[in-house]
Amino acid sequence: MCVTGGAGFIGSNFVDLLLSKGIQVRVIDNFRTGRYEFVDPRVELYNADVLHEPNSVLLKAFDGCDWVAHFQANADVRHGLERPFFDIEQNTVATSKVLDAMRQTGVKNIFFSSTASVYGGVQMDRIPEDCPFPIQQSLYGASKVACEGLLAAYHEGFDFNAVVGRWVQVVGERYLHGSIIDFTRKLLNDPDRLYILGDGTQEKSGIYVQDLVRGIWTAIQENNTGPSGYEVYNIGTDSTVSVKESAAIVCDVMNVDPVFEYSGRKNGGWVGDNPRVLLDTTKIKDIGWKPQTIVSQAIRKTTEWLLSPECTYL
Amino acid sequence: MCVTGGAGFIGSNFVDLLLSKGIQVRVIDNFRTGRYEFVDPRVELYNADVLHEPNSVLLKAFDGCDWVAHFQANADVRHGLERPFFDIEQNTVATSKVLDAMRQTGVKNIFFSSTASVYGGVQMDRIPEDCPFPIQQSLYGASKVACEGLLAAYHEGFDFNAVVGRWVQVVGERYLHGSIIDFTRKLLNDPDRLYILGDGTQEKSGIYVQDLVRGIWTAIQENNTGPSGYEVYNIGTDSTVSVKESAAIVCDVMNVDPVFEYSGRKNGGWVGDNPRVLLDTTKIKDIGWKPQTIVSQAIRKTTEWLLSPECTYL
Repeated sequence: MCVTGGAGFIGSNFVDLLLSKGIQVRVIDNFRTGRYEFVDPRVELYNADVLHEPNSVLLKAFDGCDWVAHFQANADVRHGLERPFFDIEQNTVATSKVLDAMRQTGVKNIFFSSTASVYGGVQMDRIPEDCPFPIQQSLYGASKVACEGLLAAYHEGFDFNAVVGRWVQVVGERYLHGSIIDFTRKLLNDPDRLYILGDGTQEKSGIYVQDLVRGIWTAIQENNTGPSGYEVYNIGTDSTVSVKESAAIVCDVMNVDPVFEYSGRKNGGWVGDNPRVLLDTTKIKDIGWKPQTIVSQAIRKTTEWLLSPECTYL
Repeated sequence: MCVTGGAGFIGSNFVDLLLSKGIQVRVIDNFRTGRYEFVDPRVELYNADVLHEPNSVLLKAFDGCDWVAHFQANADVRHGLERPFFDIEQNTVATSKVLDAMRQTGVKNIFFSSTASVYGGVQMDRIPEDCPFPIQQSLYGASKVACEGLLAAYHEGFDFNAVVGRWVQVVGERYLHGSIIDFTRKLLNDPDRLYILGDGTQEKSGIYVQDLVRGIWTAIQENNTGPSGYEVYNIGTDSTVSVKESAAIVCDVMNVDPVFEYSGRKNGGWVGDNPRVLLDTTKIKDIGWKPQTIVSQAIRKTTEWLLSPECTYL
């Protein structure tokens, strides 16, 4: 299997799961946000960018693989508006290049790391994969729904076998981007106050990265034989944790008791943030997966990892 | 108003409607498929391509406009697989450039010519705008759903006022691409037999271009005042016409009686073709629009136009 973005947070944890199962792994990473130290020495590493690299590099990396798991992406939702072309280039155009290199090498199985951001402003108690046609709220979400569409078109047109995972707020070891690391950094700097975007009530059915990569593996296994298909799976937990509760867990781990100050923005922490996302995960549960770690515990583990000697990124 | 693709089939008919209402119009067209003779001399014409032109051309063309109506696109669904990057570049990346030039010039009202292809494989008696999250079937559909997402993100992030129209199988004067012109050309060449893609049963709620441009105008007027929004409208007729019936109408106008031969493909005429599309048009009817021409009559008019001295494109 070839894993793009395999030196990143989710990608590298997925690679480690593959290696634990004895699977040969190639990794493509441009090390924009990925880290060399996250890459197990057993993988065949391509220091390359799927967007900018000559096609020949992708052809070489994909040649002979059974699956491509495509994680390389711009994963920052919040700052999309500052660089309005960035998401489309890094996510949509890059995925288009990956798909076409796969077509040229005859690799037809792809897992794509999508996002619950594609649900845009959908407001449902639990959002299923086939919720009403969503209206996007971010350039990130728009770029990822475009990627999903490309996969589906390659399924229809070139008989690709495509599996899409959608999730929200992943935490765990190697987490280097998002609210938990922001809180931890801020509190190391000033343990007496914590500035929080939004009103603190935003809540997501977040997930521990080890549970997530098991879910990805389950979805791939389910679709590894039989006729080619196009399948989308939500992967998430059954309850939400609010930003305020997340902050309280970080504080507890750090043994600090700051005053919480809120930006006060209603309706999400920033433009394009859906204030409440709880995924309906019936579909992936039906194929035998369930999370083993509740979100609050995952946030605790994440904070502990951030503060551990192993993590040097604060 | 600035109309991109304003020398094309739908764009130029829309421009003529605007001119009939005394509206000042700028047209941007790259004349890849647009025609000089479709452009009324009263418009301010920019011979330019929104994708490849330096940004400065777009800035000049948009400067001082109240609305941009963005029609420039690759409108060919069928051959997307032969050039897998083409739709994403011509449609998604191009729309991204249009939106960003609008942002830079402070023009915040956009009409976007989308397509019922974004409904992918959805199978419903009548497809409403908020049907279940569709699975794309073509690179064209994927590229257009991406555009819609970009508009929605610009609405959310930059307070754009965005109106999206979705339609299928537009026919009428200046129609230069699709099954009706294909049939007419083939029958001029050989009036005794007609080769038809699919099994002839594919059916769409097609629309006469004059009805369509009135619908676009209605949607724009409805959203021309008040707070900025993001609104999607299906624009179509209430009944479908099958490919076989279309062919029969063309034959009747041409006074020929060929044997119909079918490619025999089930499930649509080509990969990515939804075999049955009937749009739910409740939303646009609720704001005062309805079609005046039934599809069979529109196909008749189209064939007559194709055969008229005015049309020199056969």
